[in-house]
Amino acid sequence: MIKVGIIGVGRIGVVHAKALSKLGNVEIYAIADPVVADIETYAQSMQIPNAYKDYKKIIDDKNIDAVLICTPSDTHYAISIEAIASGKHVFCEKPVDLEISRVKDIQKRVDAENGLVYMVGFNRRFDKEFMALKNSIEVGKIGKVELVQITSRDPSPPPVSYVKQSGGLFSDMMIHDLDMAYYLVNQEAKSIFAVGNALVDPKIKTEGQDIDTAIVTIEFESGAMCVITNSRRAAYGYDQRAEVHGSQGCIMNGNHFSNHSLLMVKEGLISEKPLDFFIERYMDAYVLEISKFVEAIETKGKPPVSVIDALRSLVLAKAAAISLKEGRKILISEFMSDK
Amino acid sequence: MIKVGIIGVGRIGVVHAKALSKLGNVEIYAIADPVVADIETYAQSMQIPNAYKDYKKIIDDKNIDAVLICTPSDTHYAISIEAIASGKHVFCEKPVDLEISRVKDIQKRVDAENGLVYMVGFNRRFDKEFMALKNSIEVGKIGKVELVQITSRDPSPPPVSYVKQSGGLFSDMMIHDLDMAYYLVNQEAKSIFAVGNALVDPKIKTEGQDIDTAIVTIEFESGAMCVITNSRRAAYGYDQRAEVHGSQGCIMNGNHFSNHSLLMVKEGLISEKPLDFFIERYMDAYVLEISKFVEAIETKGKPPVSVIDALRSLVLAKAAAISLKEGRKILISEFMSDK
Amino acid sequence: MIKVGIIGVGRIGVVHAKALSKLGNVEIYAIADPVVADIETYAQSMQIPNAYKDYKKIIDDKNIDAVLICTPSDTHYAISIEAIASGKHVFCEKPVDLEISRVKDIQKRVDAENGLVYMVGFNRRFDKEFMALKNSIEVGKIGKVELVQITSRDPSPPPVSYVKQSGGLFSDMMIHDLDMAYYLVNQEAKSIFAVGNALVDPKIKTEGQDIDTAIVTIEFESGAMCVITNSRRAAYGYDQRAEVHGSQGCIMNGNHFSNHSLLMVKEGLISEKPLDFFIERYMDAYVLEISKFVEAIETKGKPPVSVIDALRSLVLAKAAAISLKEGRKILISEFMSDK
Amino acid sequence: MIKVGIIGVGRIGVVHAKALSKLGNVEIYAIADPVVADIETYAQSMQIPNAYKDYKKIIDDKNIDAVLICTPSDTHYAISIEAIASGKHVFCEKPVDLEISRVKDIQKRVDAENGLVYMVGFNRRFDKEFMALKNSIEVGKIGKVELVQITSRDPSPPPVSYVKQSGGLFSDMMIHDLDMAYYLVNQEAKSIFAVGNALVDPKIKTEGQDIDTAIVTIEFESGAMCVITNSRRAAYGYDQRAEVHGSQGCIMNGNHFSNHSLLMVKEGLISEKPLDFFIERYMDAYVLEISKFVEAIETKGKPPVSVIDALRSLVLAKAAAISLKEGRKILISEFMSDK
Repeated sequence: MIKVGIIGVGRIGVVHAKALSKLGNVEIYAIADPVVADIETYAQSMQIPNAYKDYKKIIDDKNIDAVLICTPSDTHYAISIEAIASGKHVFCEKPVDLEISRVKDIQKRVDAENGLVYMVGFNRRFDKEFMALKNSIEVGKIGKVELVQITSRDPSPPPVSYVKQSGGLFSDMMIHDLDMAYYLVNQEAKSIFAVGNALVDPKIKTEGQDIDTAIVTIEFESGAMCVITNSRRAAYGYDQRAEVHGSQGCIMNGNHFSNHSLLMVKEGLISEKPLDFFIERYMDAYVLEISKFVEAIETKGKPPVSVIDALRSLVLAKAAAISLKEGRKILISEFMSDK
Repeated sequence: MIKVGIIGVGRIGVVHAKALSKLGNVEIYAIADPVVADIETYAQSMQIPNAYKDYKKIIDDKNIDAVLICTPSDTHYAISIEAIASGKHVFCEKPVDLEISRVKDIQKRVDAENGLVYMVGFNRRFDKEFMALKNSIEVGKIGKVELVQITSRDPSPPPVSYVKQSGGLFSDMMIHDLDMAYYLVNQEAKSIFAVGNALVDPKIKTEGQDIDTAIVTIEFESGAMCVITNSRRAAYGYDQRAEVHGSQGCIMNGNHFSNHSLLMVKEGLISEKPLDFFIERYMDAYVLEISKFVEAIETKGKPPVSVIDALRSLVLAKAAAISLKEGRKILISEFMSDK
Repeated sequence: MIKVGIIGVGRIGVVHAKALSKLGNVEIYAIADPVVADIETYAQSMQIPNAYKDYKKIIDDKNIDAVLICTPSDTHYAISIEAIASGKHVFCEKPVDLEISRVKDIQKRVDAENGLVYMVGFNRRFDKEFMALKNSIEVGKIGKVELVQITSRDPSPPPVSYVKQSGGLFSDMMIHDLDMAYYLVNQEAKSIFAVGNALVDPKIKTEGQDIDTAIVTIEFESGAMCVITNSRRAAYGYDQRAEVHGSQGCIMNGNHFSNHSLLMVKEGLISEKPLDFFIERYMDAYVLEISKFVEAIETKGKPPVSVIDALRSLVLAKAAAISLKEGRKILISEFMSDK
Repeated sequence: MIKVGIIGVGRIGVVHAKALSKLGNVEIYAIADPVVADIETYAQSMQIPNAYKDYKKIIDDKNIDAVLICTPSDTHYAISIEAIASGKHVFCEKPVDLEISRVKDIQKRVDAENGLVYMVGFNRRFDKEFMALKNSIEVGKIGKVELVQITSRDPSPPPVSYVKQSGGLFSDMMIHDLDMAYYLVNQEAKSIFAVGNALVDPKIKTEGQDIDTAIVTIEFESGAMCVITNSRRAAYGYDQRAEVHGSQGCIMNGNHFSNHSLLMVKEGLISEKPLDFFIERYMDAYVLEISKFVEAIETKGKPPVSVIDALRSLVLAKAAAISLKEGRKILISEFMSDK
């Protein structure tokens, strides 16, 4: 029985707690959060034996095998270092950090700890829809990958206050799609080009210095290409789709719906909107994701999403931001040498 | 915390145990099964404190508030009587019994026990797809119900040995669709007519004295009509659909799929087959179903599916069997007076 | 160049004229209609050289090779006899007649005229959707046919005045579906059973002595079964679908739409209603149908829909009416011996 | 009755002849083609009174009101000048010319001839699927347009010999999509960026100096953006789709199919591939397109697609080619001043 401590039990921490409670071979041994008011009550309701304000009590507890870092993004780096130093396996929510140098630092520390599992939370890789794409590619159903189209739209924009500290659309939102592009194309990126605007909420630009709508084009080593479209708003709900075109055909996936009923009336044929929002859409994926973390610990194997994956998508996000700012195509090699 | 005993932990008993384990306000206190070899191991793996061969130990245990009867069909009646007599709430898998008189007897006994919850397992009423139909009808989206079409096909026929003791296609398989017809039309049936044949496996007729393919037509009090088609085989998987046509439009639902990817290749556009079989298709429904049983106990309310529901569909199943045998339309009134 | 005369240029006559004008090897030489006011103008606009009030001028014209009988149903029999007697090929709109004896009489007269093509208008056999079903069956994609479900709903009920002289729902509307059942199952029917009601418009029953909603079950020689549902109303438009279940799988088809756009808005995902009504839905089928009539004449071949096909579906329609009236299953053999 | 001469009766000329033959108010008076062997036979089969080798006979014939220019692209400019000079209305297949200066020259000549209709053949604007998008936008169903995604894939690449003289993917193939972007967004473009490769057939690059797969991003004046993906190959057939995302929702369309049957078998759920190729897919659009040309002549109105439309999309195509070559975003203003 692997003992786990969850650091940060806000929205995503609770999701992971719920996911862990469905697994048989793991115990949530402790949770820690400095701001959640009712943490003891929550711990009791979940039958979690220990609840702290200070996460360091989790770091220092020798009974705990692994930690989940679900705190605000700007604390991931520091907590990761402490957790690694204490010999604990780490599941860290994305992003590891918004600074490339720091992500590389974590990478070095993980490499130095033989057998330590450090996994990064890119939940979409564990979604049945996206796994179906990946599987179709891997078994050769569509031949050689040539062109990928990823559509990702949130139901509604976050408050500008969130936008300000988010790191920007590319690092905060599109990072999932950039990771998905790597996951599906499975090779190194050569260049990236971005256009974008604040079309949904002008304050996102004027106050948040950010955009809410973007199109990004990526060229890969083989000549394969990928286009990602993002918007912070979709009136019809959370929109998460991809198409992969290959030499032998195409595999595309769709959104998730609460039911598949079709109402046929004089106004037209009407079906349900997609599920809102990521917690509903990806709940099954979160369960599978965390089970893979536990499995990697148990089998002393490699985690399915590593720091290098986090680094790859972060580099693309950074390069996309520069591309947008300078209005030019960015070579990933150029970018890497910059840093 | 409601304490539950599960009597019978074969396939469906395990489904209910799994469903119960997802609820917060209930404890599986004991299981009993005379034939399951590894019942103690199973109990331990599920952290269930008590495991017996003899179900009477559950009946006699004053600590237990409610029992789930998941044994073979021909034992439901006797165990129900004992459980009711001991004052326990009962969740009984369908059918309560294949004899109408016995179901009426259970009905009387339940009525005599003030506040005792006796719920019958018609899982499809708790499936999101069928609930979407029901809800659309109730909020008036399609007007007055006029014509219902229910399609229900199993992936492959059961062995003839199962067929022999099943009570026949109408009582064993179509009973779910007959209940669904009542659930959707929400009024009393006037007549039923059946045609059927053993088209899938001739042994089902020659050895099992049964059919594997059937069409049944039901007339309701208001003049509304329903047609049910059943087959013990669908090469493409478990097929469970309904269409409800009303004065203002139609609501139809669809099957469930493991994913919604679409492969577009030179052979055509190919998507996944529906989920096989009822355990996968209806797992979420089983969880909701048992939660409604627990809720009825907690709130001292009425169960959403009662003995009278079981009786209604059983009468239709019996009448359908006579219709098939005699090649004529059966009036439900005539049938009721027969018994 | 085959010279054709069209007798009756109401709605369906105009459809056939339009269809014929798309063919290269045929000339509309004359039209006749006693009631159409502007028949000369119409003839001129279509560049048809001759227009008469009296259809006998067409019958007597030696220049004319073939006639299309598009007059009211109760005149089909008499005009057919005259046309056959004058040696003209005949395309007769359904029904040939509502009396079985008269249809048999036409059959005899056609048989006596060696090489005379007499084709009956069952347009759905020439619709791409239904041809796709037929083709899938014939090439063996679904194995042996076991169960057919046909859904046929008109957008809105006809006036009661029409209903009164229509011959009833089974002969007037369901006749197309009965023919489709034969076309798809491709064997003789053994029995039929019908239920029905006036749910859409009570006057259809009180004044029209007819029904507007029906379910009919047919048993075929092999044990295969078919269910047909009919309604004179579908709030969402003309609904024409079928499912054919066989030993190896199922083939189903769908409606036709003016376009396949999908509007995704906060109210849901909305697509177009099916095309209204048969003229739009089946225009391509009418063109193919009449081209097959012309082809049969040119090649001295058999027409794809013969009098015997008309007879088969008429017998089922008649038997369905008796089944409804008497509330019992009708054996087709019994019915045949009745007449 | 408008008299039309068709210059060039290769594949697309025949399509237009067929489309014209469905209209009532127009006569194909003459055809001309220097290379079609059996032009007289073809003319006879179509009941066209005059057939020439030399198109100048059409230009000089005072009886002819309008010409369709369906010759190879590099002759469009010269024939257009002659036709305009002779006072004939012109329907010119795309492209008017591959040189921007020449298109501007035609524009001037057309402007100088008061009342002369000069229409350019962008057939997709007349396709029901794309018209449904346009209509939804115009009636305000999706609010303000923000992001457009256009997918356009041919079934298989043309021979390299064709590629060499085609003007390149952007001018030859994507020009339709560039026009569609303007049609849907309905404002001026600000910038364009292209990536592309020869992934389908390397000879297209090595011998044809061209690409076969491309992604192009366009920024418009309002900040709206468009992405177009093109491939010369789609194993599953001709793929022509678009999605328009606006402030209130999204409208997307689909491909066309010969039928909508769904085969459900153990291998999966299989439906038909899209229609191959543009002649089948857009036949109805060609009929509507040419009817709009005729209508503009009859009503002395403006053609729905003018030289300025041809110019707009040509500028984008040219700019895309430069973007690809130079690996940078091209400002349309910069480009315009270049020329």
